[in-house]
Parts: sequence; structure tokens; C-alpha cells
Amino acid sequence: MHAIVIEKPGDPDVLRWAEVPDPVIGHDEVLLDVVAAGVNRADIMQRRGFYPPPKGAPEYPGLEAAGRVAAVGDGVTGWKVGDEACALLSGGGYATRVAVPAGQLLPVPRGLSPVEAASLPEVACTVWSNVFMLARLRPGESFLVHGGSSGIGTMAIQLAKAHGARVLCTAGTEEKLERCRELGADVAINYRTEDFVEAARPVDVILDNIGAKYLPRNVDTLGTGGRLVVIGLQGGGVGELDLGRLLTKRASVHATSLRARPLEEKAEVVTAVREHVWPLLESGTVRPIVDRTLPMTDAAAAHRVMEESTHVGKIVLTV
Amino acid sequence: MHAIVIEKPGDPDVLRWAEVPDPVIGHDEVLLDVVAAGVNRADIMQRRGFYPPPKGAPEYPGLEAAGRVAAVGDGVTGWKVGDEACALLSGGGYATRVAVPAGQLLPVPRGLSPVEAASLPEVACTVWSNVFMLARLRPGESFLVHGGSSGIGTMAIQLAKAHGARVLCTAGTEEKLERCRELGADVAINYRTEDFVEAARPVDVILDNIGAKYLPRNVDTLGTGGRLVVIGLQGGGVGELDLGRLLTKRASVHATSLRARPLEEKAEVVTAVREHVWPLLESGTVRPIVDRTLPMTDAAAAHRVMEESTHVGKIVLTV
Repeated sequence: MHAIVIEKPGDPDVLRWAEVPDPVIGHDEVLLDVVAAGVNRADIMQRRGFYPPPKGAPEYPGLEAAGRVAAVGDGVTGWKVGDEACALLSGGGYATRVAVPAGQLLPVPRGLSPVEAASLPEVACTVWSNVFMLARLRPGESFLVHGGSSGIGTMAIQLAKAHGARVLCTAGTEEKLERCRELGADVAINYRTEDFVEAARPVDVILDNIGAKYLPRNVDTLGTGGRLVVIGLQGGGVGELDLGRLLTKRASVHATSLRARPLEEKAEVVTAVREHVWPLLESGTVRPIVDRTLPMTDAAAAHRVMEESTHVGKIVLTV
Repeated sequence: MHAIVIEKPGDPDVLRWAEVPDPVIGHDEVLLDVVAAGVNRADIMQRRGFYPPPKGAPEYPGLEAAGRVAAVGDGVTGWKVGDEACALLSGGGYATRVAVPAGQLLPVPRGLSPVEAASLPEVACTVWSNVFMLARLRPGESFLVHGGSSGIGTMAIQLAKAHGARVLCTAGTEEKLERCRELGADVAINYRTEDFVEAARPVDVILDNIGAKYLPRNVDTLGTGGRLVVIGLQGGGVGELDLGRLLTKRASVHATSLRARPLEEKAEVVTAVREHVWPLLESGTVRPIVDRTLPMTDAAAAHRVMEESTHVGKIVLTV
């Protein structure tokens, strides 16, 4: 098969389309012929050498893909050769074939294309597991997502809105803010010109990809009983935490990632996403937001687009 | 009635036994004739001027008391004049009478004295709400409490042990460590001579009263999925949080207090304590640990004992 190989840590040019050995599926795995693969910021981190794949994961980048089942392990039930599917991956999505633990496979939602399906598993699983399973956002509560126009942001706005929350987001251009409003954001804050603390507080749940740089202001933004969930460290890892303020608010700070979780936890998340998010996609209440597609052979171009941050929603690679 | 009045913020000598107006009970309140009142570190903070009573709370110190019901508001059911009871208070326990929201009243556990009952509400509600309701400590998990010989510590060790957790604690003298072991601690760590991180990690839940000073080491001590619950700031409020480390562990930091919560939340905690903790006290599985009693008129002496930190368990004032 072919896959995108990271020749050495570095700029997008280190990504090379190369012939590599076919994956061998295990007892509980499915072989997926990849049609499309989503691009995530974590792939850029991996390319730069800061986010190695967990033990046992494919070494190629790519945390989600869609395609057709090409082979099924002896222990797998519910899937057969020829099924259209998409999958949450621990790596290896930038390839023509990938071995997937069966628990991480999802059907392509009715009415959606493989490209749209490839854009969904990572953001749907990340938002559902963090905002709903971990932070337990409830109808009537308020929810702030930073980077509202990102893949995570566009999914988070729609899902929180669909669940009856008041939705706030930040973004860096007026065009992005307008897109966020179209997706359902009640309040869209330009972080370059406005103080998001003043514009947003108090909020019940914050989904944050910035980390240390935003930590004090995120804590300031939380209301009583608020939950801050950190899923990215684009603004650094080590920050200042005012425990006195947190204590007065009876609030909490969570930090998580999906990729390193054990298989059974990932399967649990995927099952919940299939139950709670897939119906919203099939009814059209929540839409996949695909900014553009690019050929997988030119993954470097996709990384450049993501690093420029002018896109809205997801970038998808096609085989 | 009489109560301990804080003349001005300061040393124990500012506590004065004085005649003050009787409390007036509201529709949903009960008047308690106080026989005994527990002493808590928060009382010392209040005496020093750092922990004012929440709005509507009695101005005198004292977060728990036991005695006999002297009057019952029109809206109260389930309690009558003459009933023995103990109560979680927002203040006012250092007095001969106190008005208590009915939802914060508990029966004196069968077989226990009023002095023992007065030592229980604050620690039982604090430990239950934080370790079990918030951090959801499960059987088979490990649990570390700092200050294992304190009132909170002695209750936390026993409750966690009774629920099938592996229990670790810290304390500052060999005598205190031995008492913690007697109460069920599997591992008792002398924080003056040992590194608790090395001795304890990984643990699933930490109950901490130190705050900022311990924050980095507490995060180091957490295992995957670990929960740190900060309920005191004896070591300062503003600390350094390594979000990268927290993210790798998929862990969380919570900070809470009981005193400022709305009445309905307190009532919910008290109901849970009556259901889950009271049976353990009545069966003798969990014991109240009273270090000593002192006359309420000499509350200053009780505060001096607590500030010297040579006691184990609770200090109780008697009328």
C-alpha cells in the first residue's frame, strides 16, 4: 500500500507519499480501504516530532478516515467486507489501507459522502467525550468553545446548541465569527479585539485548546460549578492556577486527550457518539463542515493550509 | 443566649463569651439548644478575618453542633421539640442556641453521645461530598488524604477504607502516623522525612487541604484518570499547574467548599450522608475521633490547641 511517511521531524515538506508494507489485522480488527482521511492539528504536532503515536499504533499520521471494509478479523462481529465505514484512529489514516480496532468503526451516516464521513470521527468523539461525558453539559447551561471555526469548534457549537445550551465561542476574524453564528453560536467573540472574559462570563463549561496562556482567564470566565476542559496546549503547558478563585466557584479543571486512551474507553466513546451524534447528522441538525479536500499525495499542502489557519471546519485528504 | 463573639480579627484572645440576642427561626428552620459544637480550621480563618460568614449566616463561628430541638418552624416536617439532633451550619455553632435550616439537621447516630455527634457533620459532609459525590472514589481505587490525623483526615481514612479503597495518608509525626494506621490507612507517609510523591504515586483520588504549595506534587502523584480535590489553602492559593502532565494523565483538579453552597445542595449532601455514612457510624465501622473537649467559654484554648496541631481528630466545645 501507500502512506504518507514523516521522513524526519520538520516542516510540511518532510511528508512523503511512499510505498510501505500492508497492515496486518488482528483478531478484533478490521482492514479499511481508505477513501478519505481527516486532517487534525495533532497530525502537525506529530509531523514536528512532538506527538509520537502511542504504542502499537500505526506510525503514519491520520486520526480518522472513511472508506470500505476490505477484511475482517476472526473476532469481529457486525461488519463485513464491502461495508462503508469511518473510523477513529490512533494513527495511520494518511494511507490507502489502515487496520482499525472494530470498536472504533462507525457506519457512514445516511446521506453523507465518504469525504464528509472522514471529517467526523475525531471531532465528534472529542466533543462528545469531553463536553457531554466528562463535563456533563446540561440543557440551559452556557458553553464556551475557543477556536469556534476549527473542526472541533464547528462540531462543538452545533452539538451544544442541539442540546439546548447557550453557546459562546471565540475566533480571530469577522468572517470566522459570522460562520460560527450561522452554525448556532449565540455569542461570537473576536479574541483579537475583545476581552473574552468580559464578553463571556459566567459560563458553565469551557472547551479549550490553548492551555497555559488562557488558564487564568478561563478560570476567571467560569461561573459557580464551572468546568474547564483543556484538550490542546497551543499556548503552552505550564500555567498559573488560582485555586482560591477555583474554590470560591467550586469549579474544576480537566485536561484530556483521546488518542492515548485504552481501546475499551475509545469503544465506549464511539458507541456513545453513534447513539447520540449520528442521529443528529442523519437528520441534518448537525452538519459536517468541510473547508476543502486535497489529494492525500499532497498532504503537505493540507498541513500548510491548517498552519495558516484561514480555513473553517475540516480539511480532508482524498485517495 | 450566649455566644462566642469575635471582637476583632486576631489571635485566639479576641474570642469572647458574651450575651447576644436569641436567633429567630424562619419558616423552614429549627432552633437547636446547643450541647456541643465542633471546632474546624475554618473557624480559625474566620477569627483571623479571612473567611467571613456567607450572607444570611450567623456571625458567630462554628460550622457544626449537636443538641436538642427547642422550636420548629411552620414549614418543617420530620422534627419535633425535644428531638436530639446534630447539624451542619453556615456559622453560629459556638453559641447556646442556633437556627438551622431543617435540611441540614441529622439525628444523633444511635449509640453516640452529643459530643461525638457534634464532631461529625462538617467532616462527614465534607468527605462524602468531595471524595464520593464529586471525585466518585470507587472500590479498588487508591485514595490519598493529606493531614490524615485531622478531623477530615480521620473521617476520610475510615470512609475510604469502608468503601474498599486502598488508603494512603500523610502526617507530620510518628504518633499521628500510627493513629492513621489504626484507623485503616494502608500507607502512612511522614511528609517531614519522606517524599509523598515517591511513596504514594499513582493514586486515583487526592483530598488536599494545602493548595498551591502541593499543587505540582499532587499532580505528579495522580495516576491516569486521577482526581485532585482541593478543600483548603493552608499552603497558598496561586500555584503552578502543568496542564501537559494533567492532559497525559487525563486527570482533573477540583476546588470546593461546603459553606457557601446553596441550601438545596447542602440538604442534598446531608441526605446522602444520612443514607451512606450514618449506618457505618451506627454499626461501629466508622468511629468519631474526638481528641478532647473544652468548655465553650474557653473557645480560645481550643483554637490554640488546633493551631499547635498536636491533636488527632476533632476538638469539641461543650456548653
